[in-house]
Amino acid sequence: MKMINRLALIGLLCWLGSLMALPSHAAADREKLLKDPGVYATFVVFKMDEDWWKLDKTARVSAAAEVKAAFQKHSDSVITDTYLLRGLVEKADFFVRVHSPEILSNQNFLIDLMGTTLGKHLVNTYTFNGLSKQANYVPALPDDLKTAMKTPTDAGPKPYAIVVPIRKDAAWWITGQDGRNAMMTEHAAATTAYLKTVKRKLYHSSGLDDLDFITYFETAKLDDFNNLVIALERVEENRHNAQFGSPTLLGTIRPLDEILEILSR
Amino acid sequence: MKMINRLALIGLLCWLGSLMALPSHAAADREKLLKDPGVYATFVVFKMDEDWWKLDKTARVSAAAEVKAAFQKHSDSVITDTYLLRGLVEKADFFVRVHSPEILSNQNFLIDLMGTTLGKHLVNTYTFNGLSKQANYVPALPDDLKTAMKTPTDAGPKPYAIVVPIRKDAAWWITGQDGRNAMMTEHAAATTAYLKTVKRKLYHSSGLDDLDFITYFETAKLDDFNNLVIALERVEENRHNAQFGSPTLLGTIRPLDEILEILSR
Amino acid sequence: MKMINRLALIGLLCWLGSLMALPSHAAADREKLLKDPGVYATFVVFKMDEDWWKLDKTARVSAAAEVKAAFQKHSDSVITDTYLLRGLVEKADFFVRVHSPEILSNQNFLIDLMGTTLGKHLVNTYTFNGLSKQANYVPALPDDLKTAMKTPTDAGPKPYAIVVPIRKDAAWWITGQDGRNAMMTEHAAATTAYLKTVKRKLYHSSGLDDLDFITYFETAKLDDFNNLVIALERVEENRHNAQFGSPTLLGTIRPLDEILEILSR
Amino acid sequence: MKMINRLALIGLLCWLGSLMALPSHAAADREKLLKDPGVYATFVVFKMDEDWWKLDKTARVSAAAEVKAAFQKHSDSVITDTYLLRGLVEKADFFVRVHSPEILSNQNFLIDLMGTTLGKHLVNTYTFNGLSKQANYVPALPDDLKTAMKTPTDAGPKPYAIVVPIRKDAAWWITGQDGRNAMMTEHAAATTAYLKTVKRKLYHSSGLDDLDFITYFETAKLDDFNNLVIALERVEENRHNAQFGSPTLLGTIRPLDEILEILSR
Amino acid sequence: MKMINRLALIGLLCWLGSLMALPSHAAADREKLLKDPGVYATFVVFKMDEDWWKLDKTARVSAAAEVKAAFQKHSDSVITDTYLLRGLVEKADFFVRVHSPEILSNQNFLIDLMGTTLGKHLVNTYTFNGLSKQANYVPALPDDLKTAMKTPTDAGPKPYAIVVPIRKDAAWWITGQDGRNAMMTEHAAATTAYLKTVKRKLYHSSGLDDLDFITYFETAKLDDFNNLVIALERVEENRHNAQFGSPTLLGTIRPLDEILEILSR
Repeated sequence: MKMINRLALIGLLCWLGSLMALPSHAAADREKLLKDPGVYATFVVFKMDEDWWKLDKTARVSAAAEVKAAFQKHSDSVITDTYLLRGLVEKADFFVRVHSPEILSNQNFLIDLMGTTLGKHLVNTYTFNGLSKQANYVPALPDDLKTAMKTPTDAGPKPYAIVVPIRKDAAWWITGQDGRNAMMTEHAAATTAYLKTVKRKLYHSSGLDDLDFITYFETAKLDDFNNLVIALERVEENRHNAQFGSPTLLGTIRPLDEILEILSR
Repeated sequence: MKMINRLALIGLLCWLGSLMALPSHAAADREKLLKDPGVYATFVVFKMDEDWWKLDKTARVSAAAEVKAAFQKHSDSVITDTYLLRGLVEKADFFVRVHSPEILSNQNFLIDLMGTTLGKHLVNTYTFNGLSKQANYVPALPDDLKTAMKTPTDAGPKPYAIVVPIRKDAAWWITGQDGRNAMMTEHAAATTAYLKTVKRKLYHSSGLDDLDFITYFETAKLDDFNNLVIALERVEENRHNAQFGSPTLLGTIRPLDEILEILSR
Repeated sequence: MKMINRLALIGLLCWLGSLMALPSHAAADREKLLKDPGVYATFVVFKMDEDWWKLDKTARVSAAAEVKAAFQKHSDSVITDTYLLRGLVEKADFFVRVHSPEILSNQNFLIDLMGTTLGKHLVNTYTFNGLSKQANYVPALPDDLKTAMKTPTDAGPKPYAIVVPIRKDAAWWITGQDGRNAMMTEHAAATTAYLKTVKRKLYHSSGLDDLDFITYFETAKLDDFNNLVIALERVEENRHNAQFGSPTLLGTIRPLDEILEILSR
Repeated sequence: MKMINRLALIGLLCWLGSLMALPSHAAADREKLLKDPGVYATFVVFKMDEDWWKLDKTARVSAAAEVKAAFQKHSDSVITDTYLLRGLVEKADFFVRVHSPEILSNQNFLIDLMGTTLGKHLVNTYTFNGLSKQANYVPALPDDLKTAMKTPTDAGPKPYAIVVPIRKDAAWWITGQDGRNAMMTEHAAATTAYLKTVKRKLYHSSGLDDLDFITYFETAKLDDFNNLVIALERVEENRHNAQFGSPTLLGTIRPLDEILEILSR
Repeated sequence: MKMINRLALIGLLCWLGSLMALPSHAAADREKLLKDPGVYATFVVFKMDEDWWKLDKTARVSAAAEVKAAFQKHSDSVITDTYLLRGLVEKADFFVRVHSPEILSNQNFLIDLMGTTLGKHLVNTYTFNGLSKQANYVPALPDDLKTAMKTPTDAGPKPYAIVVPIRKDAAWWITGQDGRNAMMTEHAAATTAYLKTVKRKLYHSSGLDDLDFITYFETAKLDDFNNLVIALERVEENRHNAQFGSPTLLGTIRPLDEILEILSR
């Protein structure tokens, strides 16, 4: 059994693949869209319908080529990441994370994707819309915690991604800024042990969806991620999670080509 | 990347399109139906079924023409607005907002629409019924707030529309008028910062649907809308929202022709 | 625009239609079954399946004739009323209200209806079972309210019907008779303003379904009905509604023939 | 109108039919399995799929014969009762109650049933598993109530059956034996008025299903059953019903042959 | 009736079958993966789709052979157990429990399984992901209870398996370690009477799924299991189960071959 090594290799390939997927000037845009506030993200979860699997292999392979063209056509207006859920999440095969400065661009890309031959076989299980913003609570953290929060995640492949949609209760929102700062300080302290192994990104969703936040994580160590979530369940803020997950999406980061190959087998 | 400019252009075209869609005397009716109390609105959300996408393009194009005729046939009794959800909302492709002084007219239009060739492929995901009424709480607002609430929204295209259905808890309804006035004053004050960029309209639904209100918004700035919703989550009234969204419908305002063209590709 | 007039005409036709649908001796039975305690009602909501709409028009027209025969065959044991939901309620096209002194008769009629060619295309979205009983709380009302409650509804067509299923919480049932009388007095007082324009009928469902009551309304004025429901939301009894609607069924009263014609287009 | 008489006749035929369905030695087993503790019951609710109704009548009649053979084959290891839900319960046509000393026998029978031609068209809407046990609370009842509880149900046909699945809240289970005894004494007292007309049987489900109890009733008088349930809603124990029904299954007891005949029409 | 004996025989065959299913060196891995912390388990519940049953028997038999090859291909990276739910759980036919040190291996196996001819007919009803870890609360138990908890389960076949997913409320997680130790001591004491007849295994799921724990049980005595669950419902910890079951999966442990044979009939 050489699973660990094989995993590391696959992870490395994914990581290299994702680095090489765009020409260098687009890669710069990618960095910017993943870092800047004011960027809109749409997470779209798909399941292939039953008829897809009854098409013959040739038809499925040529349909896959059409999908790549749709991604290519919109590559100057949106950046995309692809994730395989099949096997780990019921009723879902894969999801796409789409970023752009205008959510209209996300929609136009998705209309084209869903209009391809393969797209007509996609069942759209879940969609989450969110917006990146400046960090809310960091300014109020004590200095040592503020410093700790800057710990970069370890380099190297992180083959797993987890998406956890969150909705807060009314009591959370009505709590004053000081009260929320105190709870978020406790929250931040609970995460410090996992900053090196779990990468994270937050999106704001109030009004754009039936959520307040979309939390997105990448890691190579799911046991660390499990401990991180338990640590966050133990802080006062957890009393205010009207929704945490439901669904939790646990998948593997895989290049579009690999996902299309799996769907064409 | 010229997304912002392209968006502005599309928005402008939508806006001009909506202005030109009806002859001038009908446009007057439109203004009246959108302003008057006692007007019934039906929001009908549709998803194309799987078989639609297997029809050949010619069949889909001719089916689309039939839909336009159904809208035309009822244009003297109902006014309609069309919105594209595809890509941004799971399990939904588009919705139609129908207004008339009698909900029977809405139903008769929808029966005809659903009876077309395309209509027979529509899955009716959600329907909300509501009624426009005189403003309830405005008379009790302090004068300065009453004045502020008259701020008109900025001119110019507002390409995004959001629909948020709301149900209040029993405690809300049993609270006396003074208590509700106080909470609505706090609510109104929270909205003033967004009156210029977010247009809004309220419908009353108690007894006509499993809701108390349908709230409808138009904006070009989704980040402002996100902040508006957060501001409304922070007021006492939010404790009384037994349902807020679920579903939240985020779509783009598009002329019927454009939606039919997308469904015919 | 002559919507109001057209509506009045349609309503009048419905009303005349319903009066003429049964020969006079059966009409007597009808009055009795709608008034007496100890009568069982089954509300059955149907949606046509996707395949129905793919049948050609001739097949659909002949299937409709078969349905009329099924209604006719059971006309000595059950009375039936038909309502169109299509366009106003998601995932439902129409419902039938069936009354008889034994629920077995309702079942036997429905088996025959569902066994017709059209019936095999019916998806049974919801079913509610209930029982008419003597009024519970009226004896304890103050005399003036008791008198007021006798106000007859205005004559004339009432084209709209609304069905609201209700379940009370445990606290309601465990409250003593006096406490419930007090709350029902407040409830009755809230309805007096609407007795003339909203006709109502109550069924008891505990144990026959996952409900305690089925409330049924007819009106020509949906704005009055909206205000009636708001008035009922404002009384203490509303705290004890574990379920109110979900679904609320808002439809138009239409003769069977008209519903079948709409389904055969 | 002779509905009452017709009902009595059908009920009598059902009752005679059920007595005659098994040879006398099997009938003995039947008595034992329905009385003894330690017997496992599986309630399996089925709906015919859409394709079933498109088979021609000959195919459906021969499929029905195959079903009878499956019941026959397992008649030495399980006893079965059949109930028609069609018309009275949404999304369900009939259910089978299966008893045996080992739940494996229930499963093996159901695998064979579901493996027949008709079985392949069955959609399994609900399944409840339970276990008969010695009465828990009877020993603690006051003597007069203990005596009253021995009242036998009146002889004669009882054409209706109702199944109500129940789950208790944590507070119920954590309440000490004395507290539960007191609540069950109140519960038992509430039932005495209905012991003659409503027959009942209790199954324990904790851990075998997402339930704590399956309650099963037979009656000829649904108005008495409605009053019984209202009486049980009025006792303190009702505060601890986290689930009561959902679904409530109201059906008519009918021999397998009659159900198969209805499905073959 | 010789059900008990027949059951014992089937159970024994299952037990022997499971022992013989893997060559001895793989059996060693099996022991390790079932005992070690840090092992990932994926429980995948499947239902055959309607089209499966319309394939002719030859096609289904050959499809079954392909499934065995998929299990074989991955037998060096994952260990698998198979369970039949058909007949005892609605909307599910069987489930597979997959263990490996990396959840990626579980996913890759499941992709291959779902990519077979039979796999394309699988509807993935539920999926649960979890992780084995060192026992949390055992160190804090009183010594006598610690000793009691070491009681091995009786040898012999245990034909039934039950899976109960669990989610705790926020109050549970925020309770300090001492408070949770006290509740878990009470919990452990409640289980001692059933240690000999009910085998159990715990998985941690926080963040890997919408659960906190997956609890897995094997037994030959379902009445003991029913009593065990009742005992656990009676301890304080039960107040903190936001989810307990929903679904509860009750099935029989059966070798893959037997399940495939049942699906090929």
